[in-house]
Amino acid sequence: MKYYAYENFREDTKQLIKQVEDFKPQAIVAIARGGLSIAHCMAEGLDIREVHSLRTELYDHTQKRDSISVFNKCEFFDSIKKVLVVDDISDSGDTLDAVMKDLKEKNKTIEFKAATLFYKKTSIYQPDFWVNEADEWIEFFWEKDFNI
Amino acid sequence: MKYYAYENFREDTKQLIKQVEDFKPQAIVAIARGGLSIAHCMAEGLDIREVHSLRTELYDHTQKRDSISVFNKCEFFDSIKKVLVVDDISDSGDTLDAVMKDLKEKNKTIEFKAATLFYKKTSIYQPDFWVNEADEWIEFFWEKDFNI
Repeated sequence: MKYYAYENFREDTKQLIKQVEDFKPQAIVAIARGGLSIAHCMAEGLDIREVHSLRTELYDHTQKRDSISVFNKCEFFDSIKKVLVVDDISDSGDTLDAVMKDLKEKNKTIEFKAATLFYKKTSIYQPDFWVNEADEWIEFFWEKDFNI
Repeated sequence: MKYYAYENFREDTKQLIKQVEDFKPQAIVAIARGGLSIAHCMAEGLDIREVHSLRTELYDHTQKRDSISVFNKCEFFDSIKKVLVVDDISDSGDTLDAVMKDLKEKNKTIEFKAATLFYKKTSIYQPDFWVNEADEWIEFFWEKDFNI
């Protein structure tokens, strides 16, 4: 297990900001909880005021594959044509895959791209932008620094 | 102007987590953008999976007072009875005042309490929980560390 400190996060998020600049997103969607701090800091760096969040829940239907419910109430102004979706990691990729499908289906005139700090090569969803390949379990600073 | 580093944030957010423990919130609402990282880290520390966010915009109607529009699509499960609303600072207090009114009006069976890291004594809204009195302009780490 690798501890991922704020200092690592700061450098990697700045890299991600540079990567997405050409895409010129007008709004950011955070996948809660893991994507919230990244969304916040990227929005500040990119000077984007419009930040939304959505949640997912994993349901074990004791079927072949667990299903993911997306709780998404994001409503975009008509002027919004490009939106960046952010999460901490694309691990199995199930969450990002479900979220991207849901967003695209509900907003057919908007182009969505995904950005994560970590990407596992075995993930079923490859983000458009990512910084690190995840080869071991990551313990993010927000998972450790706030235990009291 | 005082720079507010991640290390300050970490200690203060842990204090805020201790303060709100007795309230036992079941969900957290972040006021974007300023409240996003705090909401994320408090949710991790308190083990709360349900995190929502909402946005506000200030409109200058060239009237006596600027008005604040709250873009709030938060929908809570019926089981949710106590919700914590978080922001970085209650400065003028206008944002928090507008958000709390909006949430309470739309969710009459839920008890809402507000938590901020900073509170200015001249604010029109006093949060239920706060850590520091703001006596000068605060530059939060997310406003500075991600400029590229």
